[in-house]
Formats: sequence, C-alpha cells, structure tokens
Amino acid sequence: MSEIIKVGVVGATGYTGVELLRLLSSHPGVEITVVTSRSEAGRPVADLFSNLRGHIDLRFVAPDLDDLTECDLVFFATPNGVAMTMVPELLDAGVKVIDIAADFRLQDADEWQHWYKMEHVCPDLLEEAVYGLPEVNREQIADARLVANPGCYPTSVQLGFLPLIEQGLVDAEHLIADTKSGVSGAGRQAAVATLLTEASENMKAYNVDGHRHLPEITQGLSAISDSPVALTFVPHLTPMIRGIHATLYADLIVDDVDLQELYEEYYIDEPFVDVLPPGVSAETRSVRGSNMCRISVYRPQGGDVVVITSVIDNLVKGAAGQAVQNMNIMFDFAETCGLESVAIIP
Amino acid sequence: MSEIIKVGVVGATGYTGVELLRLLSSHPGVEITVVTSRSEAGRPVADLFSNLRGHIDLRFVAPDLDDLTECDLVFFATPNGVAMTMVPELLDAGVKVIDIAADFRLQDADEWQHWYKMEHVCPDLLEEAVYGLPEVNREQIADARLVANPGCYPTSVQLGFLPLIEQGLVDAEHLIADTKSGVSGAGRQAAVATLLTEASENMKAYNVDGHRHLPEITQGLSAISDSPVALTFVPHLTPMIRGIHATLYADLIVDDVDLQELYEEYYIDEPFVDVLPPGVSAETRSVRGSNMCRISVYRPQGGDVVVITSVIDNLVKGAAGQAVQNMNIMFDFAETCGLESVAIIP
Amino acid sequence: MSEIIKVGVVGATGYTGVELLRLLSSHPGVEITVVTSRSEAGRPVADLFSNLRGHIDLRFVAPDLDDLTECDLVFFATPNGVAMTMVPELLDAGVKVIDIAADFRLQDADEWQHWYKMEHVCPDLLEEAVYGLPEVNREQIADARLVANPGCYPTSVQLGFLPLIEQGLVDAEHLIADTKSGVSGAGRQAAVATLLTEASENMKAYNVDGHRHLPEITQGLSAISDSPVALTFVPHLTPMIRGIHATLYADLIVDDVDLQELYEEYYIDEPFVDVLPPGVSAETRSVRGSNMCRISVYRPQGGDVVVITSVIDNLVKGAAGQAVQNMNIMFDFAETCGLESVAIIP
Amino acid sequence: MSEIIKVGVVGATGYTGVELLRLLSSHPGVEITVVTSRSEAGRPVADLFSNLRGHIDLRFVAPDLDDLTECDLVFFATPNGVAMTMVPELLDAGVKVIDIAADFRLQDADEWQHWYKMEHVCPDLLEEAVYGLPEVNREQIADARLVANPGCYPTSVQLGFLPLIEQGLVDAEHLIADTKSGVSGAGRQAAVATLLTEASENMKAYNVDGHRHLPEITQGLSAISDSPVALTFVPHLTPMIRGIHATLYADLIVDDVDLQELYEEYYIDEPFVDVLPPGVSAETRSVRGSNMCRISVYRPQGGDVVVITSVIDNLVKGAAGQAVQNMNIMFDFAETCGLESVAIIP
Repeated sequence: MSEIIKVGVVGATGYTGVELLRLLSSHPGVEITVVTSRSEAGRPVADLFSNLRGHIDLRFVAPDLDDLTECDLVFFATPNGVAMTMVPELLDAGVKVIDIAADFRLQDADEWQHWYKMEHVCPDLLEEAVYGLPEVNREQIADARLVANPGCYPTSVQLGFLPLIEQGLVDAEHLIADTKSGVSGAGRQAAVATLLTEASENMKAYNVDGHRHLPEITQGLSAISDSPVALTFVPHLTPMIRGIHATLYADLIVDDVDLQELYEEYYIDEPFVDVLPPGVSAETRSVRGSNMCRISVYRPQGGDVVVITSVIDNLVKGAAGQAVQNMNIMFDFAETCGLESVAIIP
Repeated sequence: MSEIIKVGVVGATGYTGVELLRLLSSHPGVEITVVTSRSEAGRPVADLFSNLRGHIDLRFVAPDLDDLTECDLVFFATPNGVAMTMVPELLDAGVKVIDIAADFRLQDADEWQHWYKMEHVCPDLLEEAVYGLPEVNREQIADARLVANPGCYPTSVQLGFLPLIEQGLVDAEHLIADTKSGVSGAGRQAAVATLLTEASENMKAYNVDGHRHLPEITQGLSAISDSPVALTFVPHLTPMIRGIHATLYADLIVDDVDLQELYEEYYIDEPFVDVLPPGVSAETRSVRGSNMCRISVYRPQGGDVVVITSVIDNLVKGAAGQAVQNMNIMFDFAETCGLESVAIIP
Repeated sequence: MSEIIKVGVVGATGYTGVELLRLLSSHPGVEITVVTSRSEAGRPVADLFSNLRGHIDLRFVAPDLDDLTECDLVFFATPNGVAMTMVPELLDAGVKVIDIAADFRLQDADEWQHWYKMEHVCPDLLEEAVYGLPEVNREQIADARLVANPGCYPTSVQLGFLPLIEQGLVDAEHLIADTKSGVSGAGRQAAVATLLTEASENMKAYNVDGHRHLPEITQGLSAISDSPVALTFVPHLTPMIRGIHATLYADLIVDDVDLQELYEEYYIDEPFVDVLPPGVSAETRSVRGSNMCRISVYRPQGGDVVVITSVIDNLVKGAAGQAVQNMNIMFDFAETCGLESVAIIP
Repeated sequence: MSEIIKVGVVGATGYTGVELLRLLSSHPGVEITVVTSRSEAGRPVADLFSNLRGHIDLRFVAPDLDDLTECDLVFFATPNGVAMTMVPELLDAGVKVIDIAADFRLQDADEWQHWYKMEHVCPDLLEEAVYGLPEVNREQIADARLVANPGCYPTSVQLGFLPLIEQGLVDAEHLIADTKSGVSGAGRQAAVATLLTEASENMKAYNVDGHRHLPEITQGLSAISDSPVALTFVPHLTPMIRGIHATLYADLIVDDVDLQELYEEYYIDEPFVDVLPPGVSAETRSVRGSNMCRISVYRPQGGDVVVITSVIDNLVKGAAGQAVQNMNIMFDFAETCGLESVAIIP
C-alpha cells in the first residue's frame, strides 16, 4: 500500500461532496487536508453535514491554489466548468486531479462546447485526460495525472452494454437505454422541480430530446465497438433519493450465444461488478451506499431482443465511490480500499 | 341521462374495489345495492376503508347470485378466475357485467390458460366479451352485455401506440414498452415484496421473461394493425402508490410525418386522452386520482426512433375509472359522468 | 342556493392556490374570473398546473384592483403581508375577502408584528376580521366581510382540543400539541430543506422555540376557555406530501367523564369533523384530498392524561377547503357544496 | 483486542438479522459460524439479502444446539418467545447470549407475561440478565453471560430522559414520550398495514392504549430515579424505512439549570451519544445506518416544559448496532469496533 496521501476536495457542499467525504474519512491511506467552498467558507464541514460530526474536523475554506498545490490529489466535486479553470495549474504543480464533474469527459472540444454551452478553457487537456471507468481503462488510470470521472448514467449504461458491444453481438446502431434515477442526481440546489412535494409520488421522463450524458455514453461505447454506435437515451426522474436503474435493449445479430455466461466471465475479476444469477432482478437498494454495480441479463421469450438491467448507487459507483476507486488505482492502494462497506437493506 | 341503475360490486376489499366505490358513491346515476366480500361479510364497508365513512353505508355481504341478479350491472373487482364462475348465470339473468379482472380479456382460451395457469370455465363467452377500451371499441361497448375491462399496463401502452400502429407508421414487429408502475398495481395482499421497507427507495424490473399483460397488449395492437405485432414488454416496480408511466419506443418506417399533429388529431374528441404540447413531459402525478391519460410525443435528435410517454392512474383509467367510463357508455350516461374530478397536485 | 358568484384568486402559484382552483373549478356556484400572479402573468394557469388542463382556461394576470373589484369575493393565497396591502380597498369596493394567509388571524397587532416581523398596515381591520373556523364562528362568518382563514396546525389542534377546553375538563395551562406535517405545508418555494433528497426518509422537529401558529392556537383556545391557556407546541416535518397529524396531551381535572361520548356529541352536527369509533386510529390518508377532520380519543391505562389525535389534509381543511367552506357560509351555499369528494385511498 | 470469536445468529431472516450480519461481516474480531433459519434452511444467506453477496458465504441452517454451543456468542434476532427456549442450554454450555428480542428485558416475570401474552419458560434468568444499555450498565454488561438488548423506542426514550431523571430535575410522574418510527420497526413480515400502499403518504398513532415498550421504559427510568416514574407513551408509524424520532416532554421542578450544559457533560464520554449544539434539530437521517444517538435540548419560551428530541436508527442503535456494542463490551473489543461507519446523507 501507498503511504498516506494528502487530499483536497474542491466544492464539497453538494451530494457528491458529502459522499466523497464520507468515503474518504474512513480510508486508511488518506488525509483530507483541504475542503473548499466559497459560500460556506469558515463553517465547520460537519455543521453542514451532521453525519460527519466526529469524523471530519475541518472547516470549509475558499478555494486557493496555494493550499491545493500542497495536496497529492485534488478531487473536483464542483458544477461543470469550474475544474477546467484550476486544473492546468494544479497539474503544473505536480498535483494529480480527479474531476467528478464533466469538464474532461468528452474528447472533442466542439462536442463538449455544444452540450455544455460554454467555452472550454483548456481543450488541450482533453486528450490527456483518462476516462475513469476502471473496467475499461484501468491501466491508463494507473498512470494518469488527470482522470475524468464518468457520469452516473454513463457508468450504469456502459457497464451494462460493454460485453455485448465489445463482442459485436448486437446491432450497435440501434441501442436503447431507458434509465431511471433517484432525485439526488439533480444535486443539492434549491429548486422547485425536486421538492419532495413535486418529485415524490411521481414519475416522469426528462431531457428526452437530448441529455448531456448521451455523447459521453456514445463516445465510451464507440471506443470499444468495431461498428458505429447509435443510442436512444431516455432518463426518468424516480421518487427515491439514491439509485440508478438502467434498462437496456439491444437486437442480437448472432444467435448462438449464452448471454448469462458471457456476462459472468466478462466481469469475473471485477471487484465492483456483480452479475446476478438467472432470474434474479437487479434492484437499486441492493447497492445503496455501496460501490457495486449489479447486472441482470434477460432474453425474453428467447427472442432477438436482449434486455440488460444495471443498477448502481448514483452517488457511489456513479460519482464519489468510483472517484475513490480511481484514486486507489492511481496511488496503488488496493482497489477496494475504503469501498468495502455493505449496501444497506432495508 | 339514464335512470338510476342498481349496481353490485363483487370482491370489493382490494384497491380496485375501494376506488370503484369512491367513484360510484358520487355518480348521480348509480345506486350501489350490493358489495360483496367473503372474508369481510357483515362488516361495514366504511370500517375497512375509512375514506368512505359518510359516503357508503352498506355492509359487505357474502357473494350471492340472488342478490346480484337484482342488479342492472355487476362489477367484478375480484382476483383472476372468480368472475368466470359467476358471469354466465348473471348474463342469463339479464344482468350486465364489467369484469375488471382478466377473465375475459384474451379471446383465445388456450392463450388465456397458458398465461393464467388455470382452465377457463366459460371459454364460449370470450368471443362475446367486448374489450373495454373506449378509444377503440366505443360502439361495441355500448351494446355489450359483458365487458372485459383492460389491464392497467395495456391501457397506457395501447393508448400510447395506437396512432402509430393504426397509421402503419412504425415497424410493428419491433416495439418496446418500458413501463413503470406504482405499488398499488400489486394489490392489497399481505406480501413481503411490497412492504414499504422493501419497495420504498428502490427500483427494479420484474417479470421480464413474461408478464400476463404482454399477450393482452399484443392482441389489442394486432387488432388495429395491418402487419404482425411483436412487443418487448418490461414492467418495473416504482416507489410510489399510484401511477403508471409507459415509455414506448418504435422505429419509424415513414419519414414525412408530424407526430405531434398526428396524436393531437387522433385524440381530439377523446374526453380522457390529453396530448401534451411539445416539450411538456407527461408525469404520473398530473393524473393522480383522475381518469385521464396524458401523452407526450418525442422524436429525439430528429432520428428514426419515436419515443412516446403515456401516463395514467393505474387505479382509475387503469382499472376502476375506465370501468365507470364503460358503464357510462353501456347505460347511456354522459361518458364523463362521475369522472370529472381534477387530479390532485401536489 | 345563491346565484353564481364571481371569484378572484390572488397569488395562485403556490399549493394553496392550485388546491383552491381544483376545488373552485368544480363548485357549481362559482365563476373564477381572475387568477393573479406577478411572476407568471400571461401564462395559462393550466400550463403551470397540468392537473387543471381542461378545467381552468384562464391565464394568470398581474394583480390589479380594477379587475378584483369586479369580483364578489377575493381569496388571498399569497405570502403573509400581501393581503393587508389590498384588503382595505377591496372591502371599500364592496368585495368580500377570505385571506388564507395569516394577515388577519391575530387580533392583537403588536403580537402579530412580533411573530410576523413586519408592520401591520391596517391594524384597524384586525378586530373586524372573523376567524374562519366554522365549528366555532359559523354565525359570524356568515355575516363577515373579511374572513381570516385559520392556519393548518391551528385547525387540527383547535378541533382536537375544543370539547375539552370548552367544557373545562382539563388543565388548560398545561397543554401539549405534538404535530406532524407533510412537506406541502412549507409551500412551493425553491429551497434546500424541502428537497426530496433532504426531507424524504427523514423526521425532525423544527421551530421548537417558537412557531407562528402558537399564538394563533392560544388565542383561539383562550376565546372559549374560562381559564388561562398555555400550550407547548412542537411541529415536525414528516416525509409525506399532504397531511397533518396532531397528537394532543392534556391533564384531566375531572374524573367522571365519558370522553368518547363527549366528542361524538360535540361534533354530531358538524359536516367536516368525524369522531372515530373507540380503538380506531385517525390516519392522515383517510382525509387525503378531502375537507374532513378525523379525531380519535384515548385515555391510556385509564389514567389522567387524555390523548387526542386529530388529522386533516393541510391543503384542504387546513387551507383551501376550509376557505371554500367559509365561502359557502358567507354566500349561503350549502356548507358542503364543492367539498363532497371522497378522500383517496390508497 | 480480543482474539477472533465465533458467533452464531439465530433467526436471521428479519431486518434485525440482516443488519446484524451487515455489521458483523466487517467486524475484524468476529467469525460468523452459524446463521439459522427454519424457513430458509439450505439457502445461501446472500440469496435472501443481495447486499450480502460477496460478504457472507454461509447458508442458513435449521437451529441446532450442537452447532450453537460451538460458538462463543449467540445473538437471537428471533420473534419474542424463541430465545427463552434455548438460552438456558446455551448458558450451561458456556456460550454467552445477546437477545435482541424482548425475552429478558423485564425483570418481573408477571409483568412480562402480562405484556407478551405467553408464559416465560425460564423466569429465573430474568434477574441475571443484564439490560444492555451501555450508557447505564456498561460494567455489568462487561461481566454478563446474558444480555437483554433494549428495544428501539426504549433506547431513544431512555437516552433522552436519563440526565433529567437521574438528576431529579423534572416531575418523573408526568413524563410524555411522543415517538415516531420508520416502518422497519414492524419487521419483515407479510402484512397489509405495512405495505407501501398503506404506510406511505400516511401518519398515524398506534397502540396508544398500551405498547410493550412502555413497561421497559418505565423500568429503566425507575432504576435511576429517586422518585416514582409515570410515562405517557404514544408511538406513531411514519412513512420512512428507518429511524426513530422521540419527542420528550417533562415539567421542570428546579429553575436554575443549564440544560444544554447538563446534557453535553452527561454524555461527554459516550461514543454513541451526540448532544447537538443549541438550535440544531436532531433529524433521523443524521444517524441512518449508524449506531449514533443524537439529542437536541429545548426549553420553549424559557418556560417550565423541557422538550428533548432524540433520534436513532431503529435497526442500529435500536437493535443490531447496540447488540454489537454490547458484544464489544462483553468481549473486550474496542467499544466502537465495527461501528465506525458514517451515517448516509442524503
């Protein structure tokens, strides 16, 4: 195991931030040295998040490069567009960076600018940045200075489709991802649409005409596909706090394949992907609070449509937990270190 | 308007039953004369369902043909397999019947027996029974003695697909229905899987390998399609009490069509189907407690995949409300009579 | 019954507003002529609240006295402090007013200013205003120009305590009200504390050191008590959309009393107070969407502590429904007109 | 630290069982050797509780004394009345026992039989059994062979009242505990009342006339009180999975006391009781999944009524976590071992 590393967290007042602090506070190889927030500077972190009382004694400070360059690693748990303004200087100072936001997820600056509606200030770093999905890019992550932590939907959808696409078993130009997310995916901003009174006892699709995670998924699947990839992606807001349930549909183009066996073998060595036995439904609560992705594989009525269900905790494997997994890989900790906790049922 | 009719409800201890009583208790053309339950015989109905205190003064009685044959109309809100044992005698006695369960929904007795795992005791009535989806079969319903009230999923899925299939605009052999239901769809039976502790803060698919509503939907769509119909149907259990959200996917086979206009015109005269303006997401709470189906129409990125979202209250348009709508048609009440109440938001 | 009256609603973008519109839209004696909102002026009302599609065709307009003075009655569903700026001119113009906010609930201007942290601009009207709890002030409401519609907690707590206090059966200086409210009581404002992610799967007390409804309850109970009234009032935020559950504790000072009988007789003629049979627990869902208050009466272990539970829907009997009830009394409609709908279970 | 101990869990198919397995599976001093269930014998534990996949490899076995007597410690997570039939033989065999059910919580056999409606089969052990509330009985627990793990309500209520009662600051004969519990407190039994459809969007009191936890609380408080104790105890079912919120009311009989300081000092050395700063509301989510009890102290309007709010996770500090805490004390592990995990927010 590595020595103790110094870690900073920029923008820790959102749900990704508190979840990251929860995980890091029990990681034996980490000392959290800086936690920043402009709006909460001066306030004890555990005042904002009472679950951290007794676990984190720091106060929020305003983000400052001098503080952050003393870290070995800085996480960005900021809104999109913040990390890119600070990352170049941090890298120059020899600090490694994991951006949990989206600033470095797309390799094409034009496409990034199209979807994120702002100019990218360091497009040259897009090529260097490693997309932090360990099940695909473990080796590159180990050597990376800058990791782009995947989005929540992209994690669940890619892990669900990977074996099929990589093996060329389905029509990659006709994929469907019907995804359902808990409300924490919308963040900790004051907003009417995510009030309990609006989002509870309710179900709706949103951003059907185009969601920012669509190009990220397409880019990821294209990288491992021999043929072009086209995806219809429909996210839904679901009345629960945590969890993503992706239901994936694809058309088989080969007939003679044991899908269950394929998935089990594909993920046999992965610590955080669990292929469920035939007939067992992946459910989001089975991963609540844990870094696990669980997957169920179906071929209804033995027909040509494959149905994959893939569940994660959007704040763990879909954000903070995967960031810690990436940190473990980058700093040569055991990959599961700090991520062993059991999901909470009920 | 018709005169006051005498109505019986068989099996009124479930959620469809209490919802039917709620609606009928305020219907000006109806006198509820018999409410049956074997298990609760003798108990005041309003003891079991406190919302009915002051609205329904009857007691449950054990089901008895002599009582029921005095009715003009009998609703069955029973488990599958009960109605078929009583319907022949009721029809013989001149009583009309609306079965809210599934006994008469499939026209092919073998297929029914395959999916419902029991023998049908009056298969000869399957042909006579009218499938009670007013938007398709209004005229036959008006003349029917026996109406098979559609299932909840089939109502939302068929109303969503109808315009596309009837006009032959999509590949009918490659339909996908990803559906999400509130827990009341599972009924009021003691069960572990639907405890709040199991179903809250959770999302999962179920019966992916085959759900009884699949043949019902296929039968309904085939009836209005010029080409064969094949559907992949994946239901999900969603942590809310009421509501179905169907997300439907189909491949366009014509290019030059205004889908929004198509839907608006198709349903322009329907009192209980509301096509939302472009960009407005159908959400289940917008129909909570009401008989409305609301539909949104999408063509993401202008591509060849149509996405339709269709929401209903599973206990109203998906069960008791549609049954009242069918009653209104059968007995020449205004079709909206007793069904005008506004959905409850928040 | 009265003729059709013209009604205006000021500030209809909150939950009290949409609930009032839901109820008024099906009231046979009412024509809604003006619905105001500064922020949403010009937008169709049914665009904001999709449940009203097909029921309300009006657009929001900016509040304007010329419009409002054409009404027979104006409801204020505004934040506190708005009604008092417009009410004097409306009254002068012969328009009746029901303020669902708190501007006229306290008779003492100083106390009002203490609790509401602003100056009252028409303190002279505080005396004229009738506190709109029909079970106490029905006759005065009938003759009122200006009705102060009670708060949600005060309605449930006063209806629970009234028989005990009026009869002098308990120590009025030592009352406890432990109250639990659904999140809609906090309104439709963007806020972090009432996000689903914060308020779901959570329970907490708030404003323990002093809530604005405390002086309102004390004033109301004092008015019918022969002795001084002192109350400990602790509100709690509960993870549900609608409903108030008040659990009330008082010390009996007489021994020989049949509490169940007392409550049943006290409320025997009240259309919207339902005393449940012994042993039946009042539950909030039994009044969801309805104007009913249900009450259970207990004397645990036959001791000296009375426990009363009292449930209402905070948006109906606790706000918009009670406002319609007051309107019915003021305009000589049947008191239950437009309020007959059955609560929704499940 | 102690050596590794062998632990058995009897009756592990309920929520206390799965939570205990979750905690024990990450406890470094424990080897789980036997997990029993009559109904699930032969089935892998992780089949029933998918969160335990990869963490627990055992199968359920039917309970057998030969297996259990090989353990150093046996936990009973059984329904009431089961532990007492096996405990005498286990103790005779030198096995220590922690009963998470209620068989040994009351010292008076007659009272136990009155409340639990069955005969006690080993009343002689009631005196020996140590009531496992570490904050009161830490030393006796360390030496105990048999620990009666406290109930969930009794834990939250006693920890809230302890400083006041022990110091004689309030009228102990006039205590009120208004308690709210998540639905997991009702267990994992198939039942109608705890279906999501019945318990969600609802609030109600239950067992107001007498709950089994009343004598347990009274016994506990009496043991540390100089004067007689009388309590009014009203539990409520709350629409959430986990959490107990106790709101406690007591009448001060001394005037000159700093309650905040009293509580902070009283619990200063306790690892699992956290007195919150003035003005911060204890909320159940702040302890979700953790063994912490958080307490807020109020004296509304500076009057004579003290209000204490006390929150725990009913399955952790209210059951399985406290059992592990007791195990740690009995076997000389660090008291916090295996219980350090941070509560999950959001």
